[in-house]
Amino acid sequence: MIKIDENLTVTSPAGFKASGIHCGLKKSLLKKDLALIYSDVVATSCGVYTKNKVKGAPLTVTKQHLINKKAQAIIINSGNANTCNGDDGLSKANKMTRLCAKALNIKNDDVLVASTGVIGVPLNIDAIKDGIPQLVGNLSEDIEGAKNASMAIMTTDTIQKQAGITFEISGKKVTLAAMAKGSGMIHPNMATMLSFITTDISISPTLLKEALKESVNVSYNRISVDGDSSTNDMVLIMANGLASNETITEKNNDYNLFLEALTSLNIYMSKKIAKDGEGATKLIECTVKNANSIDDAETLSKSVVTSSLVKAAIFGSDANWGRILCALGYSNVDFDPEKVDVSFASTAGEILVCQNGASVNFDEAKAKEILLQDEIKILIDMKLASSEATTWGCDLTYDYVRINGDYRS
Amino acid sequence: MIKIDENLTVTSPAGFKASGIHCGLKKSLLKKDLALIYSDVVATSCGVYTKNKVKGAPLTVTKQHLINKKAQAIIINSGNANTCNGDDGLSKANKMTRLCAKALNIKNDDVLVASTGVIGVPLNIDAIKDGIPQLVGNLSEDIEGAKNASMAIMTTDTIQKQAGITFEISGKKVTLAAMAKGSGMIHPNMATMLSFITTDISISPTLLKEALKESVNVSYNRISVDGDSSTNDMVLIMANGLASNETITEKNNDYNLFLEALTSLNIYMSKKIAKDGEGATKLIECTVKNANSIDDAETLSKSVVTSSLVKAAIFGSDANWGRILCALGYSNVDFDPEKVDVSFASTAGEILVCQNGASVNFDEAKAKEILLQDEIKILIDMKLASSEATTWGCDLTYDYVRINGDYRS
Repeated sequence: MIKIDENLTVTSPAGFKASGIHCGLKKSLLKKDLALIYSDVVATSCGVYTKNKVKGAPLTVTKQHLINKKAQAIIINSGNANTCNGDDGLSKANKMTRLCAKALNIKNDDVLVASTGVIGVPLNIDAIKDGIPQLVGNLSEDIEGAKNASMAIMTTDTIQKQAGITFEISGKKVTLAAMAKGSGMIHPNMATMLSFITTDISISPTLLKEALKESVNVSYNRISVDGDSSTNDMVLIMANGLASNETITEKNNDYNLFLEALTSLNIYMSKKIAKDGEGATKLIECTVKNANSIDDAETLSKSVVTSSLVKAAIFGSDANWGRILCALGYSNVDFDPEKVDVSFASTAGEILVCQNGASVNFDEAKAKEILLQDEIKILIDMKLASSEATTWGCDLTYDYVRINGDYRS
Repeated sequence: MIKIDENLTVTSPAGFKASGIHCGLKKSLLKKDLALIYSDVVATSCGVYTKNKVKGAPLTVTKQHLINKKAQAIIINSGNANTCNGDDGLSKANKMTRLCAKALNIKNDDVLVASTGVIGVPLNIDAIKDGIPQLVGNLSEDIEGAKNASMAIMTTDTIQKQAGITFEISGKKVTLAAMAKGSGMIHPNMATMLSFITTDISISPTLLKEALKESVNVSYNRISVDGDSSTNDMVLIMANGLASNETITEKNNDYNLFLEALTSLNIYMSKKIAKDGEGATKLIECTVKNANSIDDAETLSKSVVTSSLVKAAIFGSDANWGRILCALGYSNVDFDPEKVDVSFASTAGEILVCQNGASVNFDEAKAKEILLQDEIKILIDMKLASSEATTWGCDLTYDYVRINGDYRS
């Protein structure tokens, strides 16, 4: 019933508009760098943030503005993270929301702010100030507005990331959509990862927050590009209630349906982000089953998708399962190495390469064919209990090194 | 007084011989793959091992043989880790020591064994069996024997790693020397890192173990190449007492001198290993000072040298200090980001790039010149208390990806 629609955008839910422009933070005039999402009415809203001790100034301002659990607009810039800029950074993040609120004629604390880009370089607030009239003027509920917004939040991303889901609750059509950016520094606890979710559902602030947290834990918090966790991550959601469903205030069927849709959407976006990791050529999906607990399964799985040696082997389409056992081994989870089975799978088939912690005779040519595809599944059976978790990552490539060897210039 | 001598080898201490041959584990006839270190008399001996849950069969055998705290020989092969091979692996590791003991006419449990190479491929024990007569026959106390042994333990290492120290205790000359291999998978808790230390000092087994542990904690356990911890690491030491010093049985000046020498040697070898990380072009030395505790300082420092983004920036000679703050931030250590200072240093000078957690105007050309050298120091002042720790790593390069994309073939 719940099905991802790649043609939906953040302006698909009722009452949302968006825009994206080039204001001058990025050097190329062709690259958009300032985005706006706007709801016709004040929406119930909440966020989930990075756990990095070093936090960008925009996070501080957004958290303050969400104390009342309401928001009507989100302004986002790329090209500069506005982090490690001291009081100047905080002052400019505050100025971004004030200028935006004024231009939209809404309350300052109903505007949220996010930034992504280089750390420790003063933000060019004048460029943003000069861009805001055009940014607000361009607001549109058409697909074009959403497309421009999603392009304006990209940094080293190579593809736009947008999708949505439509479903019915009690006869009312509800729409949920997201736009996100990812690429380098993506790690559990959400590094330099931004995702903005809009929905016209009517739901209590408490349950919206709970659903967001629960879905983020099994999606954005289960992806890793390079193990680095960023200073500026956030996932924000605005629910403006214009679907006119009976407001969800308890964990009934309506809530469960919403949670399922939100989780599906967030997992879909997470996989998009992992696959578009800096320099990545392949998505790695690692499922650990029959572990002692979900926490154990998640830790084991993350250890595999974060291992540089595993990632480099997948890049080289090399069925080097020893590195997978090695990564399980240093995860600090207790298990019996002599019980572990490992298989690789993709659209080209599935192959068992390790049984009970030891080598099996497998067809190297078949393994190579499986690993040459662009979405690789690593299936690990711990044979201990019945808990399972899936995490996502990408391969480690020459381009990762190229991109990150001189990002600032 | 304590000074590293790069011309000393594991056969420099009195009564030690070594050899290294090609027995057929590596494809190229030019590459040695079997090494032996032998002491004329039974030596006091102990080891420190990987904490990886998946352990190579050689570790199991070596630990058993060290229950009596004595050893007379160490046999080491490269080209195959003899790990994840089930009962067959254990049986072959046992066979290696038995064959070696027989050829040397010494007790089986006085022979230790170590292996390094690919995981999960059955060990070719016949090649080793056929090689042992030549291996034993070639034993020599000359520099050539030590050189052959140190070459025979290399995998993707590009340089041999040997050094030693001579010092006097109570009028007796004592010599201490080591040979090591490193390269990929080097991480705190010693991944695919082997180091063998010989000395002619006379010391009690208890104090030898204590000195080894203490020195390993500030050396081999403070290096990281790619964050992966291996299944086969070990550091073994043999002290044969032939220096004829009064046996060290308490923590007196003699002990302190030995500990200082052992620590200096282990740090020297650790830096050699880090600098020769797979594909590495630069050694990174990160010192965190004025932290709340040594543990905190070590965790913060390791987080920086393990960060793929920092490593890629150093490869590109890019003074991207924001990534350093970011890595400190996700280390789970509590600190005040607005107090942190960061400097880069090398033989070309020193430059402050971040003060109190924010950007300072620095000379980019000067920073570039400093970062273009091959040994880069990252100096971080937390301004909290007075604890300090230094860790070592290397840059992340195209060659790391190339080497690890298809290691098995």
